Amino acid sequence: MDLRIAAVQMMVTDDKNKNLKTAARAIARLAGQGADLIVLPEMFLCPYQTDLFHTYAESADGQAVQLLSSLAARHQVWLVAGSIPERDTAGLVYNTSFVLDRSGHPVAHHRKAHLFDVDIKGGQYFKESDTLAPGQTATVFATEFGPIGLCICYDFRFPELARRMVLDGAKLILVPGAFNQTTGPAHWEVLFRSRAIDNQVFTLGCAPARNPDTTYQSWGHSILAGPWGNVIRQLSQSPGSFLETIDLGLVDKVRRELPLLLHRRPEIY
Amino acid sequence: MDLRIAAVQMMVTDDKNKNLKTAARAIARLAGQGADLIVLPEMFLCPYQTDLFHTYAESADGQAVQLLSSLAARHQVWLVAGSIPERDTAGLVYNTSFVLDRSGHPVAHHRKAHLFDVDIKGGQYFKESDTLAPGQTATVFATEFGPIGLCICYDFRFPELARRMVLDGAKLILVPGAFNQTTGPAHWEVLFRSRAIDNQVFTLGCAPARNPDTTYQSWGHSILAGPWGNVIRQLSQSPGSFLETIDLGLVDKVRRELPLLLHRRPEIY
Repeated sequence: MDLRIAAVQMMVTDDKNKNLKTAARAIARLAGQGADLIVLPEMFLCPYQTDLFHTYAESADGQAVQLLSSLAARHQVWLVAGSIPERDTAGLVYNTSFVLDRSGHPVAHHRKAHLFDVDIKGGQYFKESDTLAPGQTATVFATEFGPIGLCICYDFRFPELARRMVLDGAKLILVPGAFNQTTGPAHWEVLFRSRAIDNQVFTLGCAPARNPDTTYQSWGHSILAGPWGNVIRQLSQSPGSFLETIDLGLVDKVRRELPLLLHRRPEIY
Repeated sequence: MDLRIAAVQMMVTDDKNKNLKTAARAIARLAGQGADLIVLPEMFLCPYQTDLFHTYAESADGQAVQLLSSLAARHQVWLVAGSIPERDTAGLVYNTSFVLDRSGHPVAHHRKAHLFDVDIKGGQYFKESDTLAPGQTATVFATEFGPIGLCICYDFRFPELARRMVLDGAKLILVPGAFNQTTGPAHWEVLFRSRAIDNQVFTLGCAPARNPDTTYQSWGHSILAGPWGNVIRQLSQSPGSFLETIDLGLVDKVRRELPLLLHRRPEIY
């Protein structure tokens, strides 16, 4: 069954309502073009800045998720709502991706499980764990197209997590993510290709557009790779979107020809 | 401490003695240029053809390993002797890489643990398990430069095995391998880069040169990648070699800046 999948590489500002409107406009447009599933970028609600996450945080039934839910229902489209800072009842804040089905029901969510703490000489300094709490699970959700895996940005650097999602059935892995101007050119594309090759799945990364006014500058380059590791589509750093038709059945074909998952030797690892 | 590492992308023929002479000449030349460690290609002793492995097979103390041992000792160089078909005392044949230290002592060996059985529509058909038995362990050996991991070709497609070697201390992973004209252009470079990125290690692949007269045509492209995922050196498909100086201390630096191995969440996988 064909899946028409879209990614929205939007410009994220410090104005929450403006960001929600930008997302809403893109969702309406892509749903109008026939999208079945639309992915938004990591932290599309606010600048990617650790000291702002608590200010912008919302609960799982807050204004942002309610609006996204109504958009999914109105357009009858699957919505993987990038990520937002989510405050739980204990006051902890997570980097969370909510999944709304075609009726707008929140059927799954993923809390970023690996927090990005990095200090590259002459490059990027960033410490998410200053203000965020980590998630505790891998996430795979069921759709009419088959099971889909979901993780956020730095999560995707860990081959074990991708493998876990795949062994749990994922044929497509969605990654709202914001690599930066250091890690992006060095690692972004090769990671989406290699996870696709190793696991024989489709992989999709959806990033914010580069915003020159922010301290953390996203690499953009939202990407879709096929289960043979080919890049199907990749954007630049500018605002934009893509809509592509993929067949998850191709995953089964590639796995029949080169049965990597059957050839694993867990007793050795 | 600097490690001067070399790879020999030699033309492999159906004449075992000729292949040994080709290897011996390259070893003498590279050792003369100051190499500390020299890697030969997968199945450098015979054509990469399942129905020939039993014919060419030797025991671990056979003529080929004895010659390689004397070469290592004469040139006082580490030798990772690609791989040869190895017959054990029970008559089983393995795809085995022998490691000789600077005194010529066989200090380690790796038996290919994942056998390459593949049937790509319009592409490659190959079934190693028709004639080979699989190894049962991951392999890391100690050197004066630090621990080095070793696996063979198809083994390297499994991210779990690379991770195992790295958790066992490897800062460099050596991979005698022969991808083909289908899988080579699609996957070879991205795998060496991504294993390096995920594990923050050096990776080195050493392949036979393309031989147009053989049924299985090697992709060549022997490669060395650094722990940031950069390609340090890559050959074409023609016979050749490279000698590069690397510092395994760079592994520690990259791991300090981006502590991927510390950020793993095994309880989630």
